[in-house]
Amino acid sequence: MTQSHTYAAAGVDVAGEGAALAGLLGWVRKSHAFRPKGTMGHLGVDVGYFASVLELTPELGLAVAADGVGTKILVAQLCDRYDTVGIDLVAMNVNDLVCIGAEPISILDYIAVEGLDPDMLEQIGRGLYAGAEQSGAAISGGELAQIGAMLRGARPGKAFDLAAVALGTIHPDKVNLGAAVEPGDVVVGWASSGIHSNGLSLARRVLIDAEGAPGLDAPLPGGAGETVADALLEPTRIYVKAALELLRDESVEVTALAHITGGGFQNMARIASSCGYLLDTLPTPPAIFQALAAGGVPTKDLYEAYNMGVGMAVTVRPGGEERALEVARSHGWEASVIGRATAEAGIKLPGVGLQSSGEGGFKPL
Amino acid sequence: MTQSHTYAAAGVDVAGEGAALAGLLGWVRKSHAFRPKGTMGHLGVDVGYFASVLELTPELGLAVAADGVGTKILVAQLCDRYDTVGIDLVAMNVNDLVCIGAEPISILDYIAVEGLDPDMLEQIGRGLYAGAEQSGAAISGGELAQIGAMLRGARPGKAFDLAAVALGTIHPDKVNLGAAVEPGDVVVGWASSGIHSNGLSLARRVLIDAEGAPGLDAPLPGGAGETVADALLEPTRIYVKAALELLRDESVEVTALAHITGGGFQNMARIASSCGYLLDTLPTPPAIFQALAAGGVPTKDLYEAYNMGVGMAVTVRPGGEERALEVARSHGWEASVIGRATAEAGIKLPGVGLQSSGEGGFKPL
Repeated sequence: MTQSHTYAAAGVDVAGEGAALAGLLGWVRKSHAFRPKGTMGHLGVDVGYFASVLELTPELGLAVAADGVGTKILVAQLCDRYDTVGIDLVAMNVNDLVCIGAEPISILDYIAVEGLDPDMLEQIGRGLYAGAEQSGAAISGGELAQIGAMLRGARPGKAFDLAAVALGTIHPDKVNLGAAVEPGDVVVGWASSGIHSNGLSLARRVLIDAEGAPGLDAPLPGGAGETVADALLEPTRIYVKAALELLRDESVEVTALAHITGGGFQNMARIASSCGYLLDTLPTPPAIFQALAAGGVPTKDLYEAYNMGVGMAVTVRPGGEERALEVARSHGWEASVIGRATAEAGIKLPGVGLQSSGEGGFKPL
Repeated sequence: MTQSHTYAAAGVDVAGEGAALAGLLGWVRKSHAFRPKGTMGHLGVDVGYFASVLELTPELGLAVAADGVGTKILVAQLCDRYDTVGIDLVAMNVNDLVCIGAEPISILDYIAVEGLDPDMLEQIGRGLYAGAEQSGAAISGGELAQIGAMLRGARPGKAFDLAAVALGTIHPDKVNLGAAVEPGDVVVGWASSGIHSNGLSLARRVLIDAEGAPGLDAPLPGGAGETVADALLEPTRIYVKAALELLRDESVEVTALAHITGGGFQNMARIASSCGYLLDTLPTPPAIFQALAAGGVPTKDLYEAYNMGVGMAVTVRPGGEERALEVARSHGWEASVIGRATAEAGIKLPGVGLQSSGEGGFKPL
């Protein structure tokens, strides 16, 4: 018998996030007054978009984004394997940066550890290096904090946390917030490499901890022979070089890029245009998501927590879709047209009967 | 009867840090190849200095630094008071930035929480705002991660961690690594506001947890009536505006600035000059450090873990010391000449009979 698992029940209160953040974000936004426009100040990109931009000069904007790896780290500990989470860390940040059109140049990492484990740290470093290479950025610095009293882990002595900030450059006139998206624009989905770095609490619970769960070392149900551990730890795909290639191709007008992370396709609601998105040709969800469904996660929860096979949603003017597909394929991953922009706001997934305004989760369509 | 507490015994292995980091730092340094000079690359400032610098244009350098608050967060939890640690977070980062002469423009924070506590988050935000105001920087973005399964706290439901990256601007030709320090240069100490954000594990153990310790609510022994809690939570002083004022004063040549954090005066060994420092007129340590000594912390451990009353060591050409003192006092804090640069390398503290090469801790003088 399968059990039902909801995202909130797995320890992450997504719905409550907005209200809980209001006080904090009020102070953050107010601080922008200390750097008004013309003094290396903000370019009017809200902290809620994929990245913020500081105008350093009229010709040079600095895009900034912050993110962590989250509980994928616990899976790494369970597997005693630490050379992939550094890639996830870089990926989560640089994929956000490139959404506004910025070219990543630098990453700064924060590594909090229970104890100084040279081999574990070396493996983390190896992943950071691989992620930096895939994004064309340098790791410019970081902090290693020994705060054992503040951390919990899944393996004695190996508790740690990872977060980072990524920096990129962009001409201030070229910041892409998706304001130009028009009804009829085509949405191309670039395939994810798995569940990336979101929803791991729920996935751990369903695939490892639950009664009757396959467990870490079992083959992933429906997979190509990889274990559950391999499937869960698969590093987040880095879309930077493909995205920059497409953005620089003058034959295509890329009207928006949306990194599909926690919240799933609801991330497209961040796009500045008043359009909505009808995603009526989504690909069949890869095996890992089918295994989560088979483990009892309701469809609504799946689509609220996971990328469901699409890691980057690329919106282009009609006619640009062929190039958007080609670029992805030339980088070695699958891509398909997943839908189009609509005059009506909201994200609609008719294939699974769900819709969302971008806040408060998906509802029946 | 007092007990002896060493820094290592309080859970932080300072001596082992170098070796444990070697593998990680190897990958970090190697990643700099992805951004060679002329491509928004690194300016040759090693990741071990207070901040790194990326050369965005021949006229514009971007200084970057990362740091966290560490276990001061546990003290905040014990006190159920969260409006000061945001100041500490900003301070630890911007005080590093200004050491190389950079002007902070932006801060990105990472807040990891056990649960979404709106009031706690609002208080953290208030501190971030105050720190941003004191440093003239905007909080440009951040990440709030709910990772309860990875955190431990001192109060149920209130576990959290705080880290940040600070960004500043500096002309690439003006990056100050202290290479110009010469024997005879005068070292002025700008007073700290307390123990700042280092050595809190040891302080907590000695002043709160140990048998016979005064405890959080007792008056600080030798203090001015403040409680141990108040003394421990006193926010880290932000030296940015004073430092920038002094750096811009053409009547003074500031040859080095060293933020005195974990490692104490050994931080001065980071200064690029081959000089050493004879600190023979250090101020009397403030009450908090005397209380730690009375609690059994050996002198060597005190000077290895704490600022001992000096939060920023400002090295100037002889004749500049009066201005360095005045600027600090005009900002409302004490300052005094604490020593001078010497031809012989190493940091010497004759008043307490200690010396250090900058690595491996203090030894008897």
